[in-house]
Amino acid sequence: MRRKPADLTIGRVRIALSIAGSDPTGGAGLQQDLQVFRSFGVHGAAVVTAITVQDTVKVHRVLPAFPNVVLEQIRILVRDVRPDAVKLGMLASDDVARMVDLGLAELLRGRPDPPPLVIDPVLAASDGTPLLERRAVATLVGLFADATLVTPNLPETERLTGRDVSSERAVEIAARAFLDELGARAVLVKGGHRDGAPDDLLAERGASGHELRWLRAERLEGAPVHGTGCALAAAVAAGLALGGGLHECIERARAALATAYANAFVAGSGARLLGTP
Amino acid sequence: MRRKPADLTIGRVRIALSIAGSDPTGGAGLQQDLQVFRSFGVHGAAVVTAITVQDTVKVHRVLPAFPNVVLEQIRILVRDVRPDAVKLGMLASDDVARMVDLGLAELLRGRPDPPPLVIDPVLAASDGTPLLERRAVATLVGLFADATLVTPNLPETERLTGRDVSSERAVEIAARAFLDELGARAVLVKGGHRDGAPDDLLAERGASGHELRWLRAERLEGAPVHGTGCALAAAVAAGLALGGGLHECIERARAALATAYANAFVAGSGARLLGTP
Repeated sequence: MRRKPADLTIGRVRIALSIAGSDPTGGAGLQQDLQVFRSFGVHGAAVVTAITVQDTVKVHRVLPAFPNVVLEQIRILVRDVRPDAVKLGMLASDDVARMVDLGLAELLRGRPDPPPLVIDPVLAASDGTPLLERRAVATLVGLFADATLVTPNLPETERLTGRDVSSERAVEIAARAFLDELGARAVLVKGGHRDGAPDDLLAERGASGHELRWLRAERLEGAPVHGTGCALAAAVAAGLALGGGLHECIERARAALATAYANAFVAGSGARLLGTP
Repeated sequence: MRRKPADLTIGRVRIALSIAGSDPTGGAGLQQDLQVFRSFGVHGAAVVTAITVQDTVKVHRVLPAFPNVVLEQIRILVRDVRPDAVKLGMLASDDVARMVDLGLAELLRGRPDPPPLVIDPVLAASDGTPLLERRAVATLVGLFADATLVTPNLPETERLTGRDVSSERAVEIAARAFLDELGARAVLVKGGHRDGAPDDLLAERGASGHELRWLRAERLEGAPVHGTGCALAAAVAAGLALGGGLHECIERARAALATAYANAFVAGSGARLLGTP
């Protein structure tokens, strides 16, 4: 699943940009994104949306960055460096989310060939700590129309669509709602929070209606692992930065995540952290 | 110079902690550190000391983090996750530097086996933008006694020691001042800013006086490259996290940097960024 660094000396070095919160443990957030990008042989750029205080047990504090500084970070960067893919993670507050929208406007809209965008619609940490202000949800959803892929887990799917997600049939209806009501072109509903098999559902707008596809998976054994959502979206973004097609990138990202999960390690007294993908 | 990820499944995953500023280009700062750590097969943790607005041309703005949030980030993290090595980069303000000192006290002092610490004494960006408040210099120097290695470049050496650095003999005297007057146990004075050969000087306190050793290097051709100082210190820290000896880690870091330099690439209209090491 990894491209060797040697590949990069042949072509242009690809750049993926993460716009996300800081997680000091390195197990999630922009720290994790950058390490995933490097594992794929992609150069990582990153804009900080929020600083968190956290350990492997829980999030102790979330401090959104000043909105104008988020806007400046993005605008100054993308006027000089054109990323080959962008990944959005935690946006923390509505003011920050609005500035991310504004900062990305030039890059994503009104251009013939905008870079692919992967949105991990982060709403809360595994421990329940809110990572997005309630009133920011509408701003986040407003970004979905620009996304190549949105990657909600089941609780996020339930909250964003207002739909039940307790059965495969229910998840299919909720996934369609992302396309019909929330403006997404493609959504990967991650099944890791389900009892039983953690299958993911990919739903896309197709030429002749919506295309739904279940991606089957085995439940992986072991204690909780931190940062799986961040890592999956980052891996998809890295693949897209390298020029891969969406299906291929999702396959690769899922395989990389399974390897990283198998290599998960104990760093502190709480959740394990993902190993190398 | 790279450890393969497979090595990690045999032993414990090693963790390196960067305490540094954010550089959105990913070419320096904690973004670069994390990518270097991953290249060495080491898990990266990172605490944000400051957010910068920058592109490949210059630093547009430096915004130190709230000092109490820097302290909390470090304290909460290191009480749960014990890093195998720590790297300090940009500390921005005196208040932040003091909180870093306080945050690391438990980890570094009064313990039988503290993790190795590498200090890159960042004073200014390549474009001349100050990255450390003038009155913070004394606080930074106060940390040198805890360091396994301090890695100043020539302008930093000149400013921190108040010594001339215009000849090899002068640099040797300045390097001794780090040991005799600034409390360092070992210093690597980086010669990249010199006209002529960019040799580095390693000076260490030995059992019978100071040991000085010139590490010879070829000047690498090409346009300016951003982040070489960050990358070298991060690579040494990664090596130390893996349990290497100081000399071996410096050799490896210099070799990794030469490869990264050879792989440097154009990302924007300013300095090139380092490629994979």
